[in-house]
Amino acid sequence: MFNRVHVISRHSHDLINNLKKLLPSVQFTEVHLSDVFNLETAEIILADYDQIGPFIYKLPTVKWIQGTWAGLDKLWPYIRKDDVPKFPITRTTGDNFGQLMGEYVIGNIIFWERNYFKVKENQIKKIWDCTVCPHDHRSLRDLTIGILGIGAIGSAIGRALKTLGATVYGFGRRATVSLESPDLKHFSKYYTKDNVKELLSSVDYIVNVLPRTEETNNFLGNKLLEICKGKNVTFINIGRGNIIKETELIDALTNQWISGAILDVFESEPLPATSQLWNFPNVFITPHISGNSRTQDTAENFKINFQRFQRNEPLLQQIDFVKGY
Amino acid sequence: MFNRVHVISRHSHDLINNLKKLLPSVQFTEVHLSDVFNLETAEIILADYDQIGPFIYKLPTVKWIQGTWAGLDKLWPYIRKDDVPKFPITRTTGDNFGQLMGEYVIGNIIFWERNYFKVKENQIKKIWDCTVCPHDHRSLRDLTIGILGIGAIGSAIGRALKTLGATVYGFGRRATVSLESPDLKHFSKYYTKDNVKELLSSVDYIVNVLPRTEETNNFLGNKLLEICKGKNVTFINIGRGNIIKETELIDALTNQWISGAILDVFESEPLPATSQLWNFPNVFITPHISGNSRTQDTAENFKINFQRFQRNEPLLQQIDFVKGY
Repeated sequence: MFNRVHVISRHSHDLINNLKKLLPSVQFTEVHLSDVFNLETAEIILADYDQIGPFIYKLPTVKWIQGTWAGLDKLWPYIRKDDVPKFPITRTTGDNFGQLMGEYVIGNIIFWERNYFKVKENQIKKIWDCTVCPHDHRSLRDLTIGILGIGAIGSAIGRALKTLGATVYGFGRRATVSLESPDLKHFSKYYTKDNVKELLSSVDYIVNVLPRTEETNNFLGNKLLEICKGKNVTFINIGRGNIIKETELIDALTNQWISGAILDVFESEPLPATSQLWNFPNVFITPHISGNSRTQDTAENFKINFQRFQRNEPLLQQIDFVKGY
Repeated sequence: MFNRVHVISRHSHDLINNLKKLLPSVQFTEVHLSDVFNLETAEIILADYDQIGPFIYKLPTVKWIQGTWAGLDKLWPYIRKDDVPKFPITRTTGDNFGQLMGEYVIGNIIFWERNYFKVKENQIKKIWDCTVCPHDHRSLRDLTIGILGIGAIGSAIGRALKTLGATVYGFGRRATVSLESPDLKHFSKYYTKDNVKELLSSVDYIVNVLPRTEETNNFLGNKLLEICKGKNVTFINIGRGNIIKETELIDALTNQWISGAILDVFESEPLPATSQLWNFPNVFITPHISGNSRTQDTAENFKINFQRFQRNEPLLQQIDFVKGY
């Protein structure tokens, strides 16, 4: 029986509080970056990837690392492709991120269609002006939304949008999928890179949730977004900033290929103060908060895998070091 | 066969454009306030209540008035209680308002929990600060929301919140209701005025959608909201401003009985520039736009009743001048 877990995270205090509630008989040890020596005896580690990264090849007794995040970008720099770790690393994922990121998309679309930031500006000036919100504004029922990425997160976002009445299209790498499967039945149509232009020219919103991979690097670049011109398309990026080079995104905005953008992720984070993106009135910039790895969710996720680990069952969300996700 | 409809509305241009698409063989006559003489021969009228109001008792040939709005406040001043109109007046209502107002509630709750107005402020200053959005912020799944008013609109709002994972309680005037009925099954609990304190002290949000009636006048006043103190309750008002006197609402905010308020309706509209409500940092003021009577919806609603009228079938959403709704 393993009954001790080392926690190394910028939110370890809140995380351990939540873990103790769920697993009261387990001992959780908070590891500070300034005092990492007790990792030498650690067997189970719950960690932010960037904090455990430098130590991954220096853990003599480790049996398993559970990551606190879904995105793996901050893990990869520490993994040697020719000498991958012998122990499993699992990531936090799934339903909760889908819920949080779905809420981000839904809240932002509603505010965008109704121009509520302008309403808030008016409040500061004590101006009552109902015309800043278009009288015949669109509701979610009037919108078609294309989601790039139909994994657990993209699927949950699609489901949430569909239950509120939106029409949802999906985009993925598989050549064909069954839109009758429970995970995908909320998607009305499915597209791949072969017909992505058709997708981009038939939606009101593009929502990117794709991870950073070689395939996704500048996938929306090379003037692909020109196809959206005149179609009043808004781009929401909650995947990774690599999907389009910042200079190309700025071109797409400047040339009005897209009507605006709601951006949570960027080529370079934090977004440098010198970036032109800050200045566009039709761009909303959020600092990578669309799907926080909330400690309550991370704790619940860890509990499930911890119980599997104790029962010697296969762990969930195990990272494939070869495939890269 | 009636084949001519008089339209008197501040949005008559867009409204008639939509109507012509749905009922191409009908003749729609736009009536301007400066030229109301052709109302003398009108049989069917589609009207904003405040524009048709002054003429209600001066329409010799009218058979039916369809109102463009759901709320009746602006109609009542023109109705003589001892001499109610002999012809039916029907109102626009139901599903579309529920959708629009549901989106208002959902979008605002998401932005509120995540502090996105502050994120927008930071964008203006080019500040990247992910701590302005609480790391462990609540999602809709973590929230309990009490809806005052469980008619078509309140029910639709409850359904939308429930599909996104919220726990929803309902409040109405009926002594008992069946929470197994399709219209109410998304409500987990039902409350009436007899146990409203219990409701107010067990929710994270109070959403008022009640209409203006004698019964609802200052219903949330008389220090009723004191019961919310310390419970981090936010008040959303999209019903009518009469539910609580402005002075009492200001007291509730000042005494921190409630954590904040999202207000679309007010005792007096437009909200006077002198109102203290404008100044609260924890109040979001919107100018009565949560559920616009969009012309596309009004046109669709009219079409349904117009076809019933032509077939001599009972009209939907007929106003009961005695009951007052």
